Amino acid sequence: MSLLRSWVESANAPDHPFPLNNLPCGVFSLEDEPRCGMAIGDFILDLAALEEEGVIALPGGSLLDVPFWNEVMEAGPAVWADLRAQVTGLLAEGSASRAEVEPHLVPRAGATLHLPFLVSEYTDFYAGRNHAFNVGTMFRGAENALPPNWLHIPIGYNGRASSVVVSGTPVRRPWGQVKGPDDAVPRFAPSARFDIELEMGAVVGQPSTHGQPVTVAEADEMIFGYVLLNDWSARDIQAWEYQPLGPFQAKATATTISPWIVMKAALEPFRTSTPAREKPLLPYLQEPRPMLYDIALEVGLTPEGGAETVIARTNYAEMYYSAPQQLAHHTTSGCAMNVGDLLGSGTISGPTKDARGSLLELSWGGKEPFPVAGGTRSFIQDNDTLTLRGQCKGDGYTIGFGECTGKVIPALADPYAR
Amino acid sequence: MSLLRSWVESANAPDHPFPLNNLPCGVFSLEDEPRCGMAIGDFILDLAALEEEGVIALPGGSLLDVPFWNEVMEAGPAVWADLRAQVTGLLAEGSASRAEVEPHLVPRAGATLHLPFLVSEYTDFYAGRNHAFNVGTMFRGAENALPPNWLHIPIGYNGRASSVVVSGTPVRRPWGQVKGPDDAVPRFAPSARFDIELEMGAVVGQPSTHGQPVTVAEADEMIFGYVLLNDWSARDIQAWEYQPLGPFQAKATATTISPWIVMKAALEPFRTSTPAREKPLLPYLQEPRPMLYDIALEVGLTPEGGAETVIARTNYAEMYYSAPQQLAHHTTSGCAMNVGDLLGSGTISGPTKDARGSLLELSWGGKEPFPVAGGTRSFIQDNDTLTLRGQCKGDGYTIGFGECTGKVIPALADPYAR
Repeated sequence: MSLLRSWVESANAPDHPFPLNNLPCGVFSLEDEPRCGMAIGDFILDLAALEEEGVIALPGGSLLDVPFWNEVMEAGPAVWADLRAQVTGLLAEGSASRAEVEPHLVPRAGATLHLPFLVSEYTDFYAGRNHAFNVGTMFRGAENALPPNWLHIPIGYNGRASSVVVSGTPVRRPWGQVKGPDDAVPRFAPSARFDIELEMGAVVGQPSTHGQPVTVAEADEMIFGYVLLNDWSARDIQAWEYQPLGPFQAKATATTISPWIVMKAALEPFRTSTPAREKPLLPYLQEPRPMLYDIALEVGLTPEGGAETVIARTNYAEMYYSAPQQLAHHTTSGCAMNVGDLLGSGTISGPTKDARGSLLELSWGGKEPFPVAGGTRSFIQDNDTLTLRGQCKGDGYTIGFGECTGKVIPALADPYAR
Repeated sequence: MSLLRSWVESANAPDHPFPLNNLPCGVFSLEDEPRCGMAIGDFILDLAALEEEGVIALPGGSLLDVPFWNEVMEAGPAVWADLRAQVTGLLAEGSASRAEVEPHLVPRAGATLHLPFLVSEYTDFYAGRNHAFNVGTMFRGAENALPPNWLHIPIGYNGRASSVVVSGTPVRRPWGQVKGPDDAVPRFAPSARFDIELEMGAVVGQPSTHGQPVTVAEADEMIFGYVLLNDWSARDIQAWEYQPLGPFQAKATATTISPWIVMKAALEPFRTSTPAREKPLLPYLQEPRPMLYDIALEVGLTPEGGAETVIARTNYAEMYYSAPQQLAHHTTSGCAMNVGDLLGSGTISGPTKDARGSLLELSWGGKEPFPVAGGTRSFIQDNDTLTLRGQCKGDGYTIGFGECTGKVIPALADPYAR
């Protein structure tokens, strides 16, 4: 696959994140109502307006004049492909429709981006081999680093859908119950070990039936697209609360996603396999074809008024389990999946020290502060901005996700003051 | 508080679960569209019809002609009280409105009951002292039975909202990944240790603000009412999957709730305190007044074609933490709570052997099968029906919840056959 040229000139630059090959799905507004749009070059194509004028027509009627992509997702894969085909035709170099389309290009710089879909339920996985090994080593020693089930099950837990916010939303440092190893009793205090987790999110676009597991191949068909995802994590709260039933408030402060859902079709040229299996997987988890994607990822940390330091560079292909494997496992018990469910991949760490997707790993539990512009960090300081970026490199073009960013603002002085 | 007499005669029997004092909220249908109703005696009051005829009027317009109570909940506590007052007036003995109300009484026996609200997100807690001690003893020995955080935190984990079904829905035995202690590798098989958990569910009727924790008193105000809740649990799946991030597929097969939400106002006379604190709670968890309720609970097991055995009798007052404490803790990190969130109490076991709220405890991990009509049980057998019941005993009246029941049907022969 090479660059699809568009009459939107900015979209043709080989490094631009939003060429015609991409067409990611977002929700935007100017001074008006939020609605569906697709990024193209430096613009957003106002799909709601084009649908209203009849330039775009989808079966099932008006799906785009709403502040979420759930209705398009619900319409199914044939409609997803149809929409992509129509928009590709309208924006392609030489398109006869340019005159009627061009008035509906909105400069991206002046638009407000919203959460692109209504999050139905949110599940977070733990499927990065290096991350699991690093965290396990810190907590249990290298010999017992991986839990016995890890190479057999895509371990996951249910997260909190109400925590999901769009890129740019400030994140307030949480309070919580914490207890240090030498404390006799717990305290209620602002988290002192607030962290990120670099993840991808898979957006479920089709439902499954309650009581009926789905195969990995079926799961892949159910996925609408992917976003960048930052699973903000309060490590001190987590350490005290997580036994025996898993993380709870440590993960409920916020989960930031990038504003654009990159549709699966745009990622197709970048499909790649999961790593070699260290132990055979049960048949229900085996992949009929490559199910990961080659997506280069990085994390930037910018102190207030300072310069950004890229603190980690890694790749989504580092995952041990793919999103379709996770989704198939998610349905084994008969659990019904719904349109708008969001699956976090788990933290994506590479094998090297500079490829670790959390500050917990980068600072080795806070014991080895790492350098950033103007100082060092063990965990996030107030007014630090954390930014995730991702891109796929094609033949003369780039597929980007938009930034997934959030500034950590100081904890409330008194969380119960009214 | 004594019995409020109604012109609906069946509601005045001292043992009837649905006197005028109760007025629980459900969604029902005949051969038509599901809509909101309240149980009164042997009938359901068709609230949608009364609202349409203007006999009932709520601020904010039509809230009752929908198949869920979420709109009423969203309207807030003043509307909840207003609705109760209007219906109490209409149904009270001597009411002048009887003639216009009576045509809208639907016999309960002929109606279909639906899930009474749209479940936004579902959280399950672990707040029963005896249950935590029993399970901890089985897994870790009596000396280490309670995790170190248990007396300080209402331990909870996020469950799966899509698993929630209304009483009467058959529950299919799940498949899952299991591994016995002597197995070299895991297998994919139907659960052989399928279980119940006897719980109460608190229905959140008002939202909290993202980033802003709420107090226990505020949390109490946010709760609309309570239901019975059966947290179906596959113990063999749970044992293999739950470390390190908590239960996942073991709890996702189904969560059955009773069809009637008993409003907090109906439970007011039965308020009671949590047990004496074994360790002081942090201030944010301290209760300004009694926050539990004296609700007698029981579990019945009925084999296919056989007679029911009541296998456990206990009381909601056994909980160590109340729902308002759980809800307050749920918001500590800034987690936003929404209308329709459901909080499971955790398994409610009493101190004696016949008061244990799960088969895991009743059979002590399967080692001590217990008697039921026609045989014994360690875990649930195919075609067993499990039924939870609850009631509060007032002065000459009873507050009931309706049954919370489900029949376990055999696992799919091949879960991937299409």
